[in-house]
Amino acid sequence: MAQKTSIPKGTRDFLPVEMLNREFIFDTIKMVFRKYGFLPIETPAMENLSTLMGKYGEEGDKLLFKILNSGDFLAKADDKLLSEKNSVKITRQISEKGLRYDLTVPFARYVVQHRNDLVFPFKRYQIQPVWRADRPQKGRYREFFQCDVDVIGSDSLLNEFELIQIIDEVFNKLKINTVIKLNNRKILSGIAEIIGHADKIVAITVAIDKLDKIGLENVNKELLASGLPQEAIDKLQPVIQLSGTNNEKIEQLKQVLNNSETGLKGIQEIEIVLEYINASSIKTEVELDLTLARGLNYYTGAIFEVKAKDVQIGSICGGGRYDDLTGIFGLKDVSGVGVSFGADRIYDVLSQLNMFPQAAMNSTQVFFVNFGKKEELYCLSIMEKLRSKGVKTEIYPETAKMKKQMNYADKKQIPFVVLAGENEMNEQKLTLKDMKTGEQKVIGIDELLAEF
Amino acid sequence: MAQKTSIPKGTRDFLPVEMLNREFIFDTIKMVFRKYGFLPIETPAMENLSTLMGKYGEEGDKLLFKILNSGDFLAKADDKLLSEKNSVKITRQISEKGLRYDLTVPFARYVVQHRNDLVFPFKRYQIQPVWRADRPQKGRYREFFQCDVDVIGSDSLLNEFELIQIIDEVFNKLKINTVIKLNNRKILSGIAEIIGHADKIVAITVAIDKLDKIGLENVNKELLASGLPQEAIDKLQPVIQLSGTNNEKIEQLKQVLNNSETGLKGIQEIEIVLEYINASSIKTEVELDLTLARGLNYYTGAIFEVKAKDVQIGSICGGGRYDDLTGIFGLKDVSGVGVSFGADRIYDVLSQLNMFPQAAMNSTQVFFVNFGKKEELYCLSIMEKLRSKGVKTEIYPETAKMKKQMNYADKKQIPFVVLAGENEMNEQKLTLKDMKTGEQKVIGIDELLAEF
Repeated sequence: MAQKTSIPKGTRDFLPVEMLNREFIFDTIKMVFRKYGFLPIETPAMENLSTLMGKYGEEGDKLLFKILNSGDFLAKADDKLLSEKNSVKITRQISEKGLRYDLTVPFARYVVQHRNDLVFPFKRYQIQPVWRADRPQKGRYREFFQCDVDVIGSDSLLNEFELIQIIDEVFNKLKINTVIKLNNRKILSGIAEIIGHADKIVAITVAIDKLDKIGLENVNKELLASGLPQEAIDKLQPVIQLSGTNNEKIEQLKQVLNNSETGLKGIQEIEIVLEYINASSIKTEVELDLTLARGLNYYTGAIFEVKAKDVQIGSICGGGRYDDLTGIFGLKDVSGVGVSFGADRIYDVLSQLNMFPQAAMNSTQVFFVNFGKKEELYCLSIMEKLRSKGVKTEIYPETAKMKKQMNYADKKQIPFVVLAGENEMNEQKLTLKDMKTGEQKVIGIDELLAEF
Repeated sequence: MAQKTSIPKGTRDFLPVEMLNREFIFDTIKMVFRKYGFLPIETPAMENLSTLMGKYGEEGDKLLFKILNSGDFLAKADDKLLSEKNSVKITRQISEKGLRYDLTVPFARYVVQHRNDLVFPFKRYQIQPVWRADRPQKGRYREFFQCDVDVIGSDSLLNEFELIQIIDEVFNKLKINTVIKLNNRKILSGIAEIIGHADKIVAITVAIDKLDKIGLENVNKELLASGLPQEAIDKLQPVIQLSGTNNEKIEQLKQVLNNSETGLKGIQEIEIVLEYINASSIKTEVELDLTLARGLNYYTGAIFEVKAKDVQIGSICGGGRYDDLTGIFGLKDVSGVGVSFGADRIYDVLSQLNMFPQAAMNSTQVFFVNFGKKEELYCLSIMEKLRSKGVKTEIYPETAKMKKQMNYADKKQIPFVVLAGENEMNEQKLTLKDMKTGEQKVIGIDELLAEF
C-alpha cells in the first residue's frame, strides 16, 4: 500500500510561484542591507541545548524542538527517572541539541565565539529559518524565516538612523506604505521612575495604547484596576494625553521627565535620531509612540516597530538597541542595535494588496514547441544563442500534442512561444507568438535575438 | 560564570567572507538552472519519520536526526520498553519527526502530495541543508547543503542532454575544468546478464575502475577472488579492456552486449545523448565510463558524474535517471532524471585553486571616514546619492581615530575611501582614495557620482 503523504503540522512546502515571490522579498531586503555595508552570516540549525536553554523563559524552553541523541540514548538515562516517566528531567539525559528558536541568541553566541575573526563594529544580516513548537494557527508556523540585521560594537545613534534608512528603503522598494513607530526604553524607565511604580510599566503602556478605542476615562479606570494609586495616575495624565507632532510630544515629555536623568537621556537620543531623519530624504513617516514597549527587559535604548498602513496586520518589522546581548556568553559591554523583518507578514501584505511582480518576470521567457527530432535540433541551436545572451528559455522535452505543449507554456506563464516547424526551418526562420496579445509573426533568428 | 561558546560537532558557522563565496557558487548555479526553465521549491526541515524511515537502508535510519516529541513525551511510552532501556523501540514512541536526510525523498513526497498543483514535466531545483548523524571528519559534515535539479514526468533523453548542458555551463561559469563521466544502468545490467552473474555487478565495476592502478592481471585476480568463475571473467575481458574514444567503446560494447536487449537499449540511449552533445557547443569533455555505478539500485538509465581536472577530490556533481521515485508514495510510472551539485566540494575546489572572485566585489564599495558631527551630515547626503545609484557605501558610525577607521576599511577590503573634512566640506568637495594604489584625489560630488 502506498504511504500517505503529509508534512508535520505547522510546517510548509513552497510551490515555485511562492518561492519566486519569497525570493523577491528576500532579494530586495538583502540588496538594501548590502548597500549599507551589512554582510551575511549563517549559523547551524542545531545549537547545543546549553546555548539555548534559559534564554527564552520557561515557556520558551518548552517550545524548543529538541534532538534525540544518536545511538543507544537510553543507556545513560537514570532508571528511577525513567520509571517515574519524568519527561522534563529525562530530556536533559537523552537530548543535547535543539533547533534554533530565533537568530538573536545564536548571533550572540557567534559574536563571542568568533570575536577575533570579526571586524567591529560588526554589521551583519542573517536570513534563516527558526523553529518553535508553538501551537500552529493561521499565520503562525512551527518553521518560519527570520531576517535580522544588526550592528554590534557601536553605541552611536547613527546606527539607529541607518536602520531607519534601511527600513524606509526596503518598504519603498516593496511599495508597501508604512509608518515607523519609534520609542526609547529610557523614556519608559523615566516614566516609571517619576511615578514611583517601575513594576507597572507594562500595564501603563498597554493602557495608553487603548486611549483611542476606550477613551481617557476608561484608561484611567484600567490603571486604577491594575493597582496603580490615584496619585500616580494623576502624574501620568500628561503622558497618557500626549499628542501632536513628534516635536510637541518631546516638549511635553521634557516637562514630565524633568526630574528623571534616564528619561531625559531617552528624549535626547530620540532627538538626535530625528535630527538625522530630518536632514535626510527618508520618505516614510516616523512617529514617536510611547505605547511601543516590545521586549521590555531586553532593550535598553531605541525601540522600533513598522506598521503597514493599507493592511490590517501586526507589525512587519521591529527591533531596538540592547546593551548586553553577549554578556551571557562572557563578552561584556558590547552594545548593539538591530531590527528583524517579518518575511511571512510581508508576504501576506503583498499578497493581499496583489502587489507581487508577475511570476512571469522571473520565470522562463521563451518557450519552444517541440515538433520532432529534426526541428528539435534546429530549436536547440537557437536556444543556445538565446541563453548565451542570458535569456531564460526551454523546449518541451517530447513531441507531444500541440495543445498539451501550449498548455504547459500557459500554466508556467511563459510570455513568448517560438514555433519552428519544417517550413520555418527550411527558411531559417521561426514564428514568435506573444502569449499576452496572441499576436504572432515570422522572423529570422537574428531578429529574435534582437528582441531580447 | 560565562557560558562556553560552542556548536554541535560536525556543524559550522559561516563568516561573511565564506558566505559571499558560497553565495557566488549558489547564485551561479541558480542562474543557470533558471536559464533552462527550472524553478525553485522548498520543503520543511522536519519531515514525518514515516516519510523518512526505511528509505535509506538500516544504516540510514540510524543516521536520521530525530526530534523529541513536545510536552510529556514519556506519558505514552511503554513501561516495559522503558525498563528494558530499549532505545530503538522507544524511539518510535517518543519521536514522530526527523530532520531531512537528503532532498530526494522529500522531493518524491512533495511531487505526490502536490501533483495537482504542479505543471508536468516538472522542472525544479532545490537548495537546502540536510542533516546526517554521521561521524564528522574532514570534509564531512552533519549539516551540509544539497543542490538538486530534476525533471520529473518525462522520459525524453533531451532531459539528459539538458542536464549536461547545465553542468557544462555551471562549471564554465565557475571556471572549473571538468570531465563529465557518463554511463547507463542498462549497460551494466546487460553486462551482468551476459555473464550470468547479476549479483556481481558491483565487484565488476569496482575491479574495472582499478585497471589503471593495478593492471589487467590483478584485476582478473580480484574478480576471481570475488567469486566470479573463470568462464565469466573470460567473457568480461572485452569490457574490462574497453578503451578508445566514446564511439570506439560503443562499437566494442555492441559486440559484447549483442544478445542483451537491455544492454543494447542502454547503448542506444547513450548514443542519442552523445548525438545531442555533438550537435551542441558544449565545451566540457564527456566520457563514457563503465566504472560509474553510483546508487545502483536507485538509477534505471543514465548515470552522470563530474570530476574536477585540476584538483584531487571526489566527484563534484552526480546523478542519473530513476523510473520509480514516487512509487513508494503511490504515484507509479513517473520517470525523472536529475543531478546534485556538491556545494561543499565545489567550495573546496575554488578555494584550493584560489579562484573565488575578490570578496571586495561583493562587499562595500565606498567607505566614508567619520570626522565629526558636521562632516557626518555632509557625508550622509553624498552617501544617499551614491546608494540611490546602487553603490554599496558605509560610514564609520563614530568619530574614532583615523587609524582605527582606516583599519576597518582595510579589513573589510573596501576598495575606495572618501575623506571629507572641514576643508573639503567648505568647497563642496571630497578626497577619494584608491586603497589598492594608495592614490588620492580631490574631486567634486558630481565627479564622485560619475566614477561609480
